[in-house]
Amino acid sequence: MTERVLRMGMVGGGQGAFIGDIHRLAARLDGRIELVCGAFSRDPYNSRATGLKLGLDPSRCYLDYHEMMRAEAALPEDKRMDFVAIVTPNHVHFPVAKAALEAGFHVLSDKPATLNLEEARELAKIVETHDTLAYGLTHTYLGYPMVSAARSIVAEGGIGKVRKVFVEYIQGWLAEPLDNKQADWRTDPSRSGISGCMGDIGTHAHNLAEFVTGKIMTHVAADLSIFVDGRRLDDDGSALFRMQDGVKGVLSASQVCVGNENSLSIRVYGETGGLEWHQEEPNTLIRTYLDRPTEILRAAQGYLPDEVAAGFRTPPGHPEGYIEAFANIYLEFAHALQTQGGVKSGMDAALRGMAFVEALVESSHNQSAWTEIRP
Amino acid sequence: MTERVLRMGMVGGGQGAFIGDIHRLAARLDGRIELVCGAFSRDPYNSRATGLKLGLDPSRCYLDYHEMMRAEAALPEDKRMDFVAIVTPNHVHFPVAKAALEAGFHVLSDKPATLNLEEARELAKIVETHDTLAYGLTHTYLGYPMVSAARSIVAEGGIGKVRKVFVEYIQGWLAEPLDNKQADWRTDPSRSGISGCMGDIGTHAHNLAEFVTGKIMTHVAADLSIFVDGRRLDDDGSALFRMQDGVKGVLSASQVCVGNENSLSIRVYGETGGLEWHQEEPNTLIRTYLDRPTEILRAAQGYLPDEVAAGFRTPPGHPEGYIEAFANIYLEFAHALQTQGGVKSGMDAALRGMAFVEALVESSHNQSAWTEIRP
Amino acid sequence: MTERVLRMGMVGGGQGAFIGDIHRLAARLDGRIELVCGAFSRDPYNSRATGLKLGLDPSRCYLDYHEMMRAEAALPEDKRMDFVAIVTPNHVHFPVAKAALEAGFHVLSDKPATLNLEEARELAKIVETHDTLAYGLTHTYLGYPMVSAARSIVAEGGIGKVRKVFVEYIQGWLAEPLDNKQADWRTDPSRSGISGCMGDIGTHAHNLAEFVTGKIMTHVAADLSIFVDGRRLDDDGSALFRMQDGVKGVLSASQVCVGNENSLSIRVYGETGGLEWHQEEPNTLIRTYLDRPTEILRAAQGYLPDEVAAGFRTPPGHPEGYIEAFANIYLEFAHALQTQGGVKSGMDAALRGMAFVEALVESSHNQSAWTEIRP
Amino acid sequence: MTERVLRMGMVGGGQGAFIGDIHRLAARLDGRIELVCGAFSRDPYNSRATGLKLGLDPSRCYLDYHEMMRAEAALPEDKRMDFVAIVTPNHVHFPVAKAALEAGFHVLSDKPATLNLEEARELAKIVETHDTLAYGLTHTYLGYPMVSAARSIVAEGGIGKVRKVFVEYIQGWLAEPLDNKQADWRTDPSRSGISGCMGDIGTHAHNLAEFVTGKIMTHVAADLSIFVDGRRLDDDGSALFRMQDGVKGVLSASQVCVGNENSLSIRVYGETGGLEWHQEEPNTLIRTYLDRPTEILRAAQGYLPDEVAAGFRTPPGHPEGYIEAFANIYLEFAHALQTQGGVKSGMDAALRGMAFVEALVESSHNQSAWTEIRP
Repeated sequence: MTERVLRMGMVGGGQGAFIGDIHRLAARLDGRIELVCGAFSRDPYNSRATGLKLGLDPSRCYLDYHEMMRAEAALPEDKRMDFVAIVTPNHVHFPVAKAALEAGFHVLSDKPATLNLEEARELAKIVETHDTLAYGLTHTYLGYPMVSAARSIVAEGGIGKVRKVFVEYIQGWLAEPLDNKQADWRTDPSRSGISGCMGDIGTHAHNLAEFVTGKIMTHVAADLSIFVDGRRLDDDGSALFRMQDGVKGVLSASQVCVGNENSLSIRVYGETGGLEWHQEEPNTLIRTYLDRPTEILRAAQGYLPDEVAAGFRTPPGHPEGYIEAFANIYLEFAHALQTQGGVKSGMDAALRGMAFVEALVESSHNQSAWTEIRP
Repeated sequence: MTERVLRMGMVGGGQGAFIGDIHRLAARLDGRIELVCGAFSRDPYNSRATGLKLGLDPSRCYLDYHEMMRAEAALPEDKRMDFVAIVTPNHVHFPVAKAALEAGFHVLSDKPATLNLEEARELAKIVETHDTLAYGLTHTYLGYPMVSAARSIVAEGGIGKVRKVFVEYIQGWLAEPLDNKQADWRTDPSRSGISGCMGDIGTHAHNLAEFVTGKIMTHVAADLSIFVDGRRLDDDGSALFRMQDGVKGVLSASQVCVGNENSLSIRVYGETGGLEWHQEEPNTLIRTYLDRPTEILRAAQGYLPDEVAAGFRTPPGHPEGYIEAFANIYLEFAHALQTQGGVKSGMDAALRGMAFVEALVESSHNQSAWTEIRP
Repeated sequence: MTERVLRMGMVGGGQGAFIGDIHRLAARLDGRIELVCGAFSRDPYNSRATGLKLGLDPSRCYLDYHEMMRAEAALPEDKRMDFVAIVTPNHVHFPVAKAALEAGFHVLSDKPATLNLEEARELAKIVETHDTLAYGLTHTYLGYPMVSAARSIVAEGGIGKVRKVFVEYIQGWLAEPLDNKQADWRTDPSRSGISGCMGDIGTHAHNLAEFVTGKIMTHVAADLSIFVDGRRLDDDGSALFRMQDGVKGVLSASQVCVGNENSLSIRVYGETGGLEWHQEEPNTLIRTYLDRPTEILRAAQGYLPDEVAAGFRTPPGHPEGYIEAFANIYLEFAHALQTQGGVKSGMDAALRGMAFVEALVESSHNQSAWTEIRP
Repeated sequence: MTERVLRMGMVGGGQGAFIGDIHRLAARLDGRIELVCGAFSRDPYNSRATGLKLGLDPSRCYLDYHEMMRAEAALPEDKRMDFVAIVTPNHVHFPVAKAALEAGFHVLSDKPATLNLEEARELAKIVETHDTLAYGLTHTYLGYPMVSAARSIVAEGGIGKVRKVFVEYIQGWLAEPLDNKQADWRTDPSRSGISGCMGDIGTHAHNLAEFVTGKIMTHVAADLSIFVDGRRLDDDGSALFRMQDGVKGVLSASQVCVGNENSLSIRVYGETGGLEWHQEEPNTLIRTYLDRPTEILRAAQGYLPDEVAAGFRTPPGHPEGYIEAFANIYLEFAHALQTQGGVKSGMDAALRGMAFVEALVESSHNQSAWTEIRP
């Protein structure tokens, strides 16, 4: 499969859905992936209209994802889609992933992988069964090369043994009761699962902390809140946590912090140094030392770890952003498909993410008692 | 006592002690307070040498604080000191305060008020008994006028009902084992009490959160750590907390976050807005709104709440800092003495601060269980 | 032509050329433009290899741009390219643009439009002659929506009558003698024209100042420098300037300011307010007022001028960057082609930009005397 | 004179005058200087009231500065003032300095030293005549230790041979016609001299550039403006400049840049590095390198040049500000008096500052022609 442009099918992402557009921009950016078909909406008219607007062959604008799997599987190998991108609301991630894998297609799913941990475990078995197929999860923020630079510096011992992590993901857009599509499914247990804010964005914070430190989070003591009257799922929460090898930390996620946009940040401190990164200024990584001035590491500079250089498309000072980070996730998935066959890297993160959310909810219901994360 | 320059005696603050110099700078700055005597060190030679270097009358450079109380009390009223500033290590705060009050002098004490909650309760009784005497506590960071501005905005409903507070006080200077005077007493239980980092700086974070929100913190669930081998007291910790009226939050304090200097910060979010303040850039207060751009409020500007205007000595753009904040604490104490008589405002904060530390330690020893703060 | 995907041919941008990749990323991002052919290099082997690597039909990987114009013109209307993107070194911009227009193709040229003002005037005549054809110039930085927001705010009187402008474009990458392709042509008069730094990046500063203020720059008093020994063109310069309606300002451009990456910024002050924007943090626009706090305007927020909303692809807090700004330039050009026919908007800016550079050089040679900009 | 507290007399600084209070705060802060007398206002009632309020001996609250010189000179040596601080409006600086020197007193004058260059030259002669007397000028911003750190780094070759300087001092408080005391004398030629904005704050920028680079500014090409109708002196201006040894730069000063408070900043670039400092965040110095990350140097850190350590009163992270910088100027003057006798360091800076303003005005009147600075 090496070097040729990969063919992508998409489930979800009908007109008006924010995340579908983002996935398409990200997949398209580098010219390595072509959208060839889709089942974009539960509403068959919207699904077809979206596909046509995207310039797809009308015969490949499917009415639902079952039809899509059947029809694509029946196409000749050099024409049918290579993989399925899943960008539906959360509760549909699992059935689509299952259907795709069973029909023989690689899967790249928006997060969370499933609605709950039980489904995630079931999916893990399905993924394992299909050993030639890949399963990826779009943990977008790992696509920022400066996040990879942070991970590399930690891994190389650049800050010494890790001690303490502060990670948070703070937004303000749900500070008031909202009445729109984006807000709706995020606060509906049947479509978002047992957690709102933590499931939606807290999982990104969890994932980022594990990625940068290279340590697994093992326990949480959490206090989740519903601040807006009438809401059924948490819109805020903080947790103390522990990771492997004695790392401790604190994680907060909130959607009621007025004025915050998409403020994901991490600070990691070890015995000899520290690192700090903010998603809203993603091209900067702050590095601290015991007895030297703090440094401002900048995207695409020659002094960064070699292995992150490929993540930049432009020279220093030409800011890259969210779409480029997302495109890096697609590029890595495409590269993995073309070089490694059935990579499963997404599945472990998926299981841990779902287990993290279950542990948070359990802890919060249980007087914030320390609760093990059991993927 | 109105309008005249007040006469201050000092206990502690011998040569080489950082905080003594700061207190003297702060007391001196505005010309409203004059240092007239002191017992500056346990070492009588150092005590006398310090006093002479400060230009004091040799007869008022005392060898110990007991002598100082006796001798000053015996001086004529228009000559003897008006109040005692206590700037010793923590474990001496209580006995000096007790001696001063019993000798008839007002007290302005460095924090913490006492070594532990038991002493604080005893001190509270003594303070209450001497109803014409004032007791103040130098919670320095409340001296920043932009902190007062934040408190005023919250009190006026400027951010709506408060929901969530993030407060932290992060340093890095104890990331390695240190062998100096400053580090020594802070990590010695007999001189610092039951907590190191939390007692030293976590209490400032607690105090700041209560001051800005106007709410009392009632419960904590804490995880304290000793990261540096051989240390006997916590050098790091984080806690979930709850305040009156449903306010929730998270507080962190650390002295092992490499590269951080004196990073005290608070963010408070309410139903309709938010505020953010950082001690290292104290002349700026960030204010957020539901549907308007974030504002940068700046020191000494006319648009700030009227009641904070007196806290600034210079026009906008002329940065004021830590010494000016500290001087404001002294000014307020002096003003209170001259107008109100026996103000006790420091005692309540002192009790709550000590109870906060005890609750943290208890919670941390008890699996981070929610623990009530009982002053 | 409405709504269909436009077909782009490219001249320049062979493998290893930075700006060609950027143009392709930008053109591809939104799925409205498809690269169909190219003559990518003076080296025919590189040209072909580049085209094949990009997945082009081998028959449309041309050996030179003359062949490309002929061959494409001979293709049926529904297949041949719609427009030519010119991304060659500066001295080739003009001949390619001329050839393309004369062959009947719209042109979107990298800046500067030509090697010098004389060529620009000749090009202007050619552009005017072909009245159904469009000519666009990729002044990338105008593609940032927050730049458009600044322009809108000024145009609506949001800062009152404009008085003073500070604009600068500062880099450090030529602080030492360099020996690479990028540095080479930028410092070679035969390929870059009469100015190095000012022609390369000073023109962006000039263009930005005119765009944001809506005023034409009329006079400059300039001091250009060559700081690196052996260099033949300016690597630094500053100029006082005057614009229409009494606006004054100062413009600096430098490529020897060590540590600066791509620091383009503008500050504009009027009678009642001000605006400040930095390219390296392009999603923020700072707005000042006479008696109110400074505001932080942020990308994609609802409070921005309506007319800029279309420029954002993601919600607030998801940083967009240089590639998205560049893609906006392509989108606007595509949109103009599909709705207005032969737009010439790029030509005026091109003429003024070339005249600006000539005036700078003349002033600098003439003791920094005030020199009129005569497009 | 070593070690004893110095006795200061003050001319100017009556109640309501901003700068008098600042001088007194600065002189008092470190306990090395005591205010003993003054002639605080042209209005004898205000003069006396000010002195009494400051707690002075009524017999030393003088009605005018002539009386003060006579009376103080008649006092015994161990009682009379050691030096005179001059904090009057600009046009009175010279006659007071002259009177003080001729009466045998050291002088520490607010800047500018005189109303014009002619007076400055006359003063220089008087200063030279009185060879045991010191003459200092309070160029406040040189009192920031991070400015000294910048100077040290440049002097040690830390950024290589200096090439380019950007310096500016931008305020907004005169953007509208104002009707108060502060604004009044600053815009009145008879009290401010031939320049408003440049004389008032442009001179600080000039002085800062010379201090940090260690180079003398030799030529300017300036464009001064009056943006507010009816004003008689410049309220804005920019200038290209040249310094010794091929250094070039650009200097701007403005009082009409709405929203700016007291934004003095400097950026200096040499062959191998750069430095950047902002007065409103004075505890940070940004340092750039050719191939290494930019560093954030912070006040009071051990890695700063040794010679600046004495300038800090508090540990890292305890912000010091304008008053501390001002106090450093007083400390240095006091130290110089006590160790060196008749230091004249202020006079050279005074002459160059006045010559700088004259050259700016001449250049601006002469079509911005390059004009030599002739002290």
